[in-house]
Amino acid sequence: MPTAFPEDSVGLVTPQQMHFSEPLELACGRSLADYTLVYETYGELNAARSNAVLVCHALSGHHHAAGYHSTEDRKPGWWDSCIGPGKAVDTRKFFVVSLNNLGGCNGSTGPASHNPQTGQPFGADFPVVTVEDWVHSQARLADVLGIQQWAAVIGGSLGGMQAMQWAISYPQRIRHCLAIASAPALSAQNIAFNEVARQAILTDPQFHGGHFMAQGVIPKRGLALARMVGHITYLSDDSMGEKFGHRRKNEQLNFDVHSVEFQVESYLRYQGQEFSERFDANTYLLMTKALDYFDPASKHDGDLTRTLADVEADFCLISFTTDWRFSPARSREIADALIAAQKNVCYLEIDAPQGHDAFLMPIPRYIQAFSSYMNRITF
Amino acid sequence: MPTAFPEDSVGLVTPQQMHFSEPLELACGRSLADYTLVYETYGELNAARSNAVLVCHALSGHHHAAGYHSTEDRKPGWWDSCIGPGKAVDTRKFFVVSLNNLGGCNGSTGPASHNPQTGQPFGADFPVVTVEDWVHSQARLADVLGIQQWAAVIGGSLGGMQAMQWAISYPQRIRHCLAIASAPALSAQNIAFNEVARQAILTDPQFHGGHFMAQGVIPKRGLALARMVGHITYLSDDSMGEKFGHRRKNEQLNFDVHSVEFQVESYLRYQGQEFSERFDANTYLLMTKALDYFDPASKHDGDLTRTLADVEADFCLISFTTDWRFSPARSREIADALIAAQKNVCYLEIDAPQGHDAFLMPIPRYIQAFSSYMNRITF
Repeated sequence: MPTAFPEDSVGLVTPQQMHFSEPLELACGRSLADYTLVYETYGELNAARSNAVLVCHALSGHHHAAGYHSTEDRKPGWWDSCIGPGKAVDTRKFFVVSLNNLGGCNGSTGPASHNPQTGQPFGADFPVVTVEDWVHSQARLADVLGIQQWAAVIGGSLGGMQAMQWAISYPQRIRHCLAIASAPALSAQNIAFNEVARQAILTDPQFHGGHFMAQGVIPKRGLALARMVGHITYLSDDSMGEKFGHRRKNEQLNFDVHSVEFQVESYLRYQGQEFSERFDANTYLLMTKALDYFDPASKHDGDLTRTLADVEADFCLISFTTDWRFSPARSREIADALIAAQKNVCYLEIDAPQGHDAFLMPIPRYIQAFSSYMNRITF
Repeated sequence: MPTAFPEDSVGLVTPQQMHFSEPLELACGRSLADYTLVYETYGELNAARSNAVLVCHALSGHHHAAGYHSTEDRKPGWWDSCIGPGKAVDTRKFFVVSLNNLGGCNGSTGPASHNPQTGQPFGADFPVVTVEDWVHSQARLADVLGIQQWAAVIGGSLGGMQAMQWAISYPQRIRHCLAIASAPALSAQNIAFNEVARQAILTDPQFHGGHFMAQGVIPKRGLALARMVGHITYLSDDSMGEKFGHRRKNEQLNFDVHSVEFQVESYLRYQGQEFSERFDANTYLLMTKALDYFDPASKHDGDLTRTLADVEADFCLISFTTDWRFSPARSREIADALIAAQKNVCYLEIDAPQGHDAFLMPIPRYIQAFSSYMNRITF
């Protein structure tokens, strides 16, 4: 029943698969003999093939960015607030491609996939993948889809890093780069939180060196802990305060170390638990490593301006005031380097209380600016 | 060889023990039949017994705040930068008392102590202790030491909460309350980080429900993780950036999920490891719970001004600009409530890059202000 969906929804969507049988050389020195990418598309590719937009996902994201897989779905795709008819990424105008990255756990080849060399799931043997590797794999997908140049590559957080890497790796294949709530590289604090998350997973006895599937178990505790740490960094201190404050779960305190005494504890435990049941521990490790390794300026002695010297895309950078994971200062570093490299850049700082998660929220000024930028794209 | 110690050091100190055989009723409803407190003193109590200062420790602190236990000690006590002859807490003027709190793991009765009821270590059976409980136990110690009124009660972080609680619980027994880098209650984010730390410990299979000593093991992984999370929150993003940035451990990356690739990872792992070998997991749980439960205003419908209505002490509050654990805003909440309650309060915000840990550092403006306040105390 398509009538069950909101009017500004892309409605029912069906994931597609593309198999690649040419080996992909990876930054780590290893290669994938063949692999599959799962993706979705929204809108229609025009005759000139000039209206395509690539949406890149963040740490725990996937290909299902907009619409519904069935009329029973309680929630639409993860960026449905921004993708659809009349939305910021207007599917009446653009042909949107959204994929699950290599190493993911939502259908693309990853640690849970069959390793032809062993006959078992890859598990810990899946190679480390980087943002650059993803961009190369995405370029191959574009080739097969007949998309020579993206009208725009768009992403938030780790997705924004992929958009930036597109502008650097394939300057002629991207006209607009939108990097939202992103950074030119992780800070020491960012890496530190990732390291805590990884240690939580790696030291879970159920992890079995990454080959937990062969043991028929899941390192749930480690994964839940990793998610709890991550989740705190996605929210602002203010938004957590607003939502939970110091409010108790029950009026009467239990006074023991196990009990959930405050609402925020109950919320976090639920988030961790729920995540540990749907996400792959090896994928989580890979995603945090991809974040850590992203540092395009390292190839130019840390000089971001030189790194961006050859980009041809116009940039749109958006940050959020209370985002302390990838703060506005990090977006300004990119903006400053682009200006120094004499590129076109539009930078917007949105006053929003939601922290890093703001990029997923329907915040009026954000949506308006995002829409305006996208509306001005011509082809 | 006392000549081995710096001139402004209190020199060699010897911890002392005080045993209390009268039961102590606790906020949780249980009681401790008898208990021991370990403490140190620096300087001399004057004839009027009016120059005594109590120093309260924070989460992982203890009684050894200043001086050395032996000439072989590589480091002095944890607050040696502020306690000694000529220092902020001048031991030529003040008689300083510093104790290990109940539930601790440095000599006072705690989870590792013998439980007379079972003949085993208390472990998880040690009762939950609160800031109020600690203050009551400290008052008993003061009684035995013949100190009717403290010239000052001083603490940073959780120690500052004890100082505040003294002013509330025993208004006539404290003339000056110095709460440094503290807060009137935890924020939701603070509780969230504590909950992550607790879950790391509680889900470590070596924790054995808190009775790991009986099993001859230590939940090292959980404790290390807890410390890693905590440690990140003690440092500022800037200070971590300054210290580690995105710098690699080795020029060549390993590209695997286990390797330490960046300097900050190596530092954090060391911090976690080292801590897990010297601290008790049950004590860590108790300390984080004491932090969570501290909320003196809850007895007055959340009204901090009314909570402070009966205090008689003068207050000195100090905060640090980059402290995001207990930010300056939290100290201002206390200052505002004191002003509204028409109390004497001196509030100072120190521009310092070190984050929460700044309260332990010899930052000139901080030390100068702290010294000035202490120097003006008369008796």
